[in-house]
Amino acid sequence: MNYAIASDIGATNLRVGLVDTKGVLEQKQEYPTPQNDPNEVISLLYKAIERLDFNGKNIAGIGLGVGGLVNYEQGIVEYTPNFSFNNINLKDILTKRFKMPVYVDNDANAAALGEKIYGAGKGTKNLVCLTLGTGIGGGIIINDSLYRGTTSAAGEIGHMTIQTGGPLCGCGNDGDLEALAGGRALDKEAREVAQKHKDSLIFRLAEGKIERVNGALVTKAALQGDELSNELLKEHAKLLAVGLANIVNILDPDIIVLTGGMAEAGNLLLQPAKDILKKRVFADSTRVPKVVYGALGPDAGILGAAALVFEQSVK
Amino acid sequence: MNYAIASDIGATNLRVGLVDTKGVLEQKQEYPTPQNDPNEVISLLYKAIERLDFNGKNIAGIGLGVGGLVNYEQGIVEYTPNFSFNNINLKDILTKRFKMPVYVDNDANAAALGEKIYGAGKGTKNLVCLTLGTGIGGGIIINDSLYRGTTSAAGEIGHMTIQTGGPLCGCGNDGDLEALAGGRALDKEAREVAQKHKDSLIFRLAEGKIERVNGALVTKAALQGDELSNELLKEHAKLLAVGLANIVNILDPDIIVLTGGMAEAGNLLLQPAKDILKKRVFADSTRVPKVVYGALGPDAGILGAAALVFEQSVK
Repeated sequence: MNYAIASDIGATNLRVGLVDTKGVLEQKQEYPTPQNDPNEVISLLYKAIERLDFNGKNIAGIGLGVGGLVNYEQGIVEYTPNFSFNNINLKDILTKRFKMPVYVDNDANAAALGEKIYGAGKGTKNLVCLTLGTGIGGGIIINDSLYRGTTSAAGEIGHMTIQTGGPLCGCGNDGDLEALAGGRALDKEAREVAQKHKDSLIFRLAEGKIERVNGALVTKAALQGDELSNELLKEHAKLLAVGLANIVNILDPDIIVLTGGMAEAGNLLLQPAKDILKKRVFADSTRVPKVVYGALGPDAGILGAAALVFEQSVK
Repeated sequence: MNYAIASDIGATNLRVGLVDTKGVLEQKQEYPTPQNDPNEVISLLYKAIERLDFNGKNIAGIGLGVGGLVNYEQGIVEYTPNFSFNNINLKDILTKRFKMPVYVDNDANAAALGEKIYGAGKGTKNLVCLTLGTGIGGGIIINDSLYRGTTSAAGEIGHMTIQTGGPLCGCGNDGDLEALAGGRALDKEAREVAQKHKDSLIFRLAEGKIERVNGALVTKAALQGDELSNELLKEHAKLLAVGLANIVNILDPDIIVLTGGMAEAGNLLLQPAKDILKKRVFADSTRVPKVVYGALGPDAGILGAAALVFEQSVK
């Protein structure tokens, strides 16, 4: 049983591959995620898995990380905020089709496990992973195991309110971490700034089209030394740091691993966030854990999905 | 080994007693906590423990819950915000004097363990305990064990920011749960209201002395049906609920147990907090855990301190 079939199903991309126990990803396939019809997602999964070449490989099972709220015990994807795939028992469906063990978890949980076993969190015991993309997901590892909570909903760190009365999140809460420090928030701030500064590098990189302005361009401009963009990232880092400090004050982990698209901002985001975190940690600033970007890039989720299989099949 | 010597050392009171494995507290003593001299605290502890009658009892060890940041592994009280007792290795000191095993932990951790083993949390697996007193402490139990974190500082839930830019806490953070929903915050709001409403019941209960107005009088007035006080508690409940929702979204526990002085407000505080919590929980309001007051009242800490001994001595 030296391989797992692994899939990372996000709002944008659906990836499928084979992963060996050492975390080597083979036969990677990537498709745009069908947005509106869950059956299309399932058909695509079938096809992608059936295209894999299993020749000479022992397969331990199928692991999936899905961008939504997942009931791990039952294998049900309960709620996907960013594409249509609600209340589907993916475990049952895939078990019937492929006759092997299937494990389904939240994609941030999978990323946490991936980084813990194969990436930046190797050797740590208590790890928190934040996926900084359009939204903000979270995965919590305690005493070397994923902590899923009582109803399989732990780790929704993006929906922790850090500014009561602040901007509304898609989840309905006001001023949560995702609404303030998520990718969508940066997109919005970027457009506001570009609107005011038509001579800015951000606006030029967007070829003068306000609808093209987004967080990714802010990062691009900041990396080219643009001061305005750098300031935007710093403001963003401040709010992120409030969230990081809350995590430290509640969970006191060894390490916080940041994954997702925003990692491209590198130290322009990370350094100011770490500086502020230090000031907000309770009682003693030497108590700050390591805060690093993930080592697996966009593969954290798919490698973690494989780890979901291995952690069960070795038991 | 059927008894533990237990002590709960808070900023106001120091309690000492003998507790049996079933959680029966005997020979309870209570003293005002010496405020400024750590040596007086230690002398008082010596005297109180030596006054206990051990006749015919097997003592498994000494357990202590202290109102501050405690390094559990080393038994060091690192930082006590509300009385003077910083950087003292209480474990070493008491082990030398009494020649038996000594366990020192944060008082909210002890209360969490007390409620889990002997109180409102019996039979639960993942429990969060909030001590709602002058400040707000927290204790986290995961998979039936206290979760202390990597540097023994987990559970500082009172210092989680819920309103960036909000009022300053003693810890230096702005808008944390303690600064907004702690007892001191209610005291302050009560004085502001009493100042404006000299004909209010709160002001009359304080015999017209503004310096006597505090949160306890708000509770007393609200319990007598005073609408103004009830409104104050409702506003307080709103902020508390933001903190509770953050706990649920991050930790997804079976139960949240509220202990400490604010419990006296009963349903006038709890019901509005639960109503708002329901709205703030991610994705599904049926996912709300039980939120209850502790069953042990002010004895949660001392019973939990005893449980610190029993959980180790049975291993």
